[in-house]
Amino acid sequence: MAFQGKKLINNPNDVVTEFIEGLVETYPELQYLDGFPEVKVVIRADASGTTYDKVAVISGGGSGHEPAHAGYVGEGMLTAAICGDVFASPSVDSILAGIRAVTGPMGCLLIVKNYTGDRLNFGLAAEQARSEGYKIETVIVGDDCALPPPRGISGRRGLAGTILVHKVAGAAAAAGLSLADVASEAQRASEMVGTMGVALSVCTLPGQVTSDRLGPGKMELGLGIHGEPGAAVADLQPVDVVVSHVLNQILSLETNYVPITRGNRVVLMINGLGATPVMELMIAAGKTVPKLQLEFGLAVERVYTGSFMTSLDMAGFSISIMKADQNLLQRLDAPTKAPHWPVGSSGNRPPGKIPVPLPPSRSTKSEESLSRPLQLSEQGRILEVAIEAAVNSVIDMRDSLNDWDSKVGDGDCGSTMYRGATAILDDMKKYYPLNDAAETVNEIGSSVSRAMGGTSGVLYNIFCKAAYAKLKANPDSAVTAKQWAEALEAAIAAVSKYGGASAGYRTLLDALIPASAVLKERLSAGDDPCTAFVLSSEAASAGAESTKDMAAQAGRSSYVSAAILATVPDPGAMAAAAWYRAAALAVKAKYERAS
Amino acid sequence: MAFQGKKLINNPNDVVTEFIEGLVETYPELQYLDGFPEVKVVIRADASGTTYDKVAVISGGGSGHEPAHAGYVGEGMLTAAICGDVFASPSVDSILAGIRAVTGPMGCLLIVKNYTGDRLNFGLAAEQARSEGYKIETVIVGDDCALPPPRGISGRRGLAGTILVHKVAGAAAAAGLSLADVASEAQRASEMVGTMGVALSVCTLPGQVTSDRLGPGKMELGLGIHGEPGAAVADLQPVDVVVSHVLNQILSLETNYVPITRGNRVVLMINGLGATPVMELMIAAGKTVPKLQLEFGLAVERVYTGSFMTSLDMAGFSISIMKADQNLLQRLDAPTKAPHWPVGSSGNRPPGKIPVPLPPSRSTKSEESLSRPLQLSEQGRILEVAIEAAVNSVIDMRDSLNDWDSKVGDGDCGSTMYRGATAILDDMKKYYPLNDAAETVNEIGSSVSRAMGGTSGVLYNIFCKAAYAKLKANPDSAVTAKQWAEALEAAIAAVSKYGGASAGYRTLLDALIPASAVLKERLSAGDDPCTAFVLSSEAASAGAESTKDMAAQAGRSSYVSAAILATVPDPGAMAAAAWYRAAALAVKAKYERAS
Repeated sequence: MAFQGKKLINNPNDVVTEFIEGLVETYPELQYLDGFPEVKVVIRADASGTTYDKVAVISGGGSGHEPAHAGYVGEGMLTAAICGDVFASPSVDSILAGIRAVTGPMGCLLIVKNYTGDRLNFGLAAEQARSEGYKIETVIVGDDCALPPPRGISGRRGLAGTILVHKVAGAAAAAGLSLADVASEAQRASEMVGTMGVALSVCTLPGQVTSDRLGPGKMELGLGIHGEPGAAVADLQPVDVVVSHVLNQILSLETNYVPITRGNRVVLMINGLGATPVMELMIAAGKTVPKLQLEFGLAVERVYTGSFMTSLDMAGFSISIMKADQNLLQRLDAPTKAPHWPVGSSGNRPPGKIPVPLPPSRSTKSEESLSRPLQLSEQGRILEVAIEAAVNSVIDMRDSLNDWDSKVGDGDCGSTMYRGATAILDDMKKYYPLNDAAETVNEIGSSVSRAMGGTSGVLYNIFCKAAYAKLKANPDSAVTAKQWAEALEAAIAAVSKYGGASAGYRTLLDALIPASAVLKERLSAGDDPCTAFVLSSEAASAGAESTKDMAAQAGRSSYVSAAILATVPDPGAMAAAAWYRAAALAVKAKYERAS
Repeated sequence: MAFQGKKLINNPNDVVTEFIEGLVETYPELQYLDGFPEVKVVIRADASGTTYDKVAVISGGGSGHEPAHAGYVGEGMLTAAICGDVFASPSVDSILAGIRAVTGPMGCLLIVKNYTGDRLNFGLAAEQARSEGYKIETVIVGDDCALPPPRGISGRRGLAGTILVHKVAGAAAAAGLSLADVASEAQRASEMVGTMGVALSVCTLPGQVTSDRLGPGKMELGLGIHGEPGAAVADLQPVDVVVSHVLNQILSLETNYVPITRGNRVVLMINGLGATPVMELMIAAGKTVPKLQLEFGLAVERVYTGSFMTSLDMAGFSISIMKADQNLLQRLDAPTKAPHWPVGSSGNRPPGKIPVPLPPSRSTKSEESLSRPLQLSEQGRILEVAIEAAVNSVIDMRDSLNDWDSKVGDGDCGSTMYRGATAILDDMKKYYPLNDAAETVNEIGSSVSRAMGGTSGVLYNIFCKAAYAKLKANPDSAVTAKQWAEALEAAIAAVSKYGGASAGYRTLLDALIPASAVLKERLSAGDDPCTAFVLSSEAASAGAESTKDMAAQAGRSSYVSAAILATVPDPGAMAAAAWYRAAALAVKAKYERAS
């Protein structure tokens, strides 16, 4: 089924000039010649033919291959790029304009992909420029390895390997070499590289309908970069298989397209064709390198992965392999300001990457230290009583919590809290180190996280971990009331920050925030800790009840009408108030019995 | 119609680990932790928590947003990236592993996109790391401007603006700032940026079917980066209109999401969503900058255009606008080794780009100089005779050439050559400067190029231009026979190079190459020029006849059987032999008359 291709463009006839306008807006160091729409030439803003003291390196061709070629204009790579219309060779006049704009006394190298139109137009421009007195050399790149030789006059197509030739030539020119030497290095580079492409989709020209040439589940092998059909259509295979096929074609001893044999050093380019996500390109790179090393016996010296020479919005990639020596690697590694030459791939690669071992936890806690003490300290006994009371209150509330939650949520609040509470009871008997309050709080977090799961499990774990970090900052094992209050404050802050809720959001914080405030206030006022705890627990209960008047901010409650919400408190807040108040009352009773 | 999404991958469950393997193969300075498949953490190869003396900057989240976040790991940006499964938050254990691997005594900043899963998992990891004694700060980024406030707990989504926050934080850390200061700069940056996206297609999860949510001709506005539906679906519009809509949303005074007002300085990010060609992104950039300047009164200080934070293979883009001051620009411009941070966008932009004027031709020829001389020199007369004879021979052969061509080609060789020949005759009478042989040859090229068109017109133009350049290198106006021979040789070389044909390819070169060889040989042997010219013309004729025995290498002839080809010579070669021989005989006759 053919349908109008979707593109984010304006007039399909303006895509190339508008591309160039955007390019020079993006890159301050690029400029263009004042010749739209006939002359579409991108040049280095700092390069003028009257003063340029290096060999100018120019490439170009039909557009639709972005970032090629204009994205490779910059010091150390191209001096100018001549852009034709989409998939159409640029005119002789525009090529000549580019040559005149940047060519100085050192001359100019034209790097041309092997297509008849480009050869003829660049060829004629070269001859005309020569007759104007410019020194011009031309290198024609045909790196396609998909089709069997001989191809007669048309020869092998120029594909993504051309980008590597640009880089070699640009670096040689930047190094101050003569035109003859720059051309010779580019020529040699062009003879060292082979490329083959694979596509999952055909490309759509701006304003055209999308072809249905390639059906579901099919891929095209050995395609060109102008939407021309590939050498073969095949069923889609895992990329492992695709990579093997492509490598065998490029490195075929039968065609002998590239002079690469076992033991050679090579560079690899994985090139996206326009609509291929980086993820897929990297997966292909990750599979290609070991194959080249192990199956073909090659040393992979550099890997370039990205979308370098595209075919509009085609999905797929090409693989280029270039035989490398020290000089070529130096040219590829040389710095360039060309914005689309990949960074981060230069420099020697380690022979093989051994992943870094997982770092150990800095926690001083060992598994053995986690055991219930044989004898509880006074504080340990109080902590145990408080925890028991707190979790039992939650266990007792299971049905009420579920009932409230069924009206405003998904109805499982009571069951979830029950799972956490029973896990705490079980684990406390088994191994909570109750004489160490900080570690015990930490373990409560782990118990609820494991037993409750979901968002509430993580939030209560964050609550406990934040309290633990605060308690642990205290070197003494005895915890004062003030330290407990500070730990509560830190725990609330962490839940608010990572959970995203604040006071009034109809969550457990609406019980805990008032509790924390009152606790701090009463302790500052000099109340004894038990009194302060109990008073703060009354604030928790009042806060939880007040959630009836609050609008829901998240989850299913936000779809529930205000009228219904007003009849039901937030179950999470009610649970928090309940365990907090139960703990406070238990601690008070314990102290009263003791006194 | 839903269909199986096409991807170049292996097992859909392995995409993230295989992505990371490819990433570290591509970039020598990246490493990963030995924890596949649970722990998927990319770190700087040179950063170890035991020795790292800067604030570590860590980000991460679900995968499927490549190159985010792992592509931003590198000196000056992220110290580690924690990768979850596709669109799934990473586990607390893997975040902790990343923190432990790279965090030194200066501490660690976690930059988290505002999604519940990421907030909770990074939050819990932060609390656990704190309890292990690490200094940790967290900044949560929510830059989405597509949806109206308030969003309650969930808040605004984290989108591509997060990349800019990474860069600011990474540069601040690299500058040696304290954790508090790095966090403060990152927090401020996160409050200065707003983002909104537009999509033409939904993304396909690895191994899943492609959704048909978005029909032909439709686009989605205000989308997230996880395939979640956008805020609205609309008919596809020109990108001009789309950009205006997005800018109005981001900079809305009503929502007041970003504190940007007229006269402010801003940076712009145009972010591709995974399957958007660079051409379209640049077009959007080119349209956005002038709108920001003229309609919103903003100074656009930097433009970043590329695919930075994607949504698998989604087609579309997001626009991010960040309020900038000098400190923030310095952070954005600071060098980084992160491979996917864009290069070439740093540094002050010129206030407006005035395109570079088209350079003038260096040709000394002026239109006035082009006129037939009042009096012909002896050489001018001979040249005139030779040209007349040559073109008349081609005119006489029209029917034969068409006849041969109808058997092996498209049947118009005679007509095409006739057009060129009559144009030469006409133009010669009007303005060929016949006393200047070089300029006359140049004009012949222009005449045939204009009149003949197509490949043969360009090739004959190249032939003439190359001869012209060679002839013109001679400062004298008198041209020796040796110089003519050299010009012929250069012309043949140019046609061979740019046309791609060699001897034996069944083209005009099969007449001209033997002629050139004999001409050179006879002149070297001391023959008089007329004799040498005539002898070489016999070689041309013999060469043309010999094309009957040649296989075709290009064009329609390559589909013609060898039996038919053997009965017909190549018409192009026959035409070339004819004009060459006619010229030779005419020159000989002229000399004989003169002597």
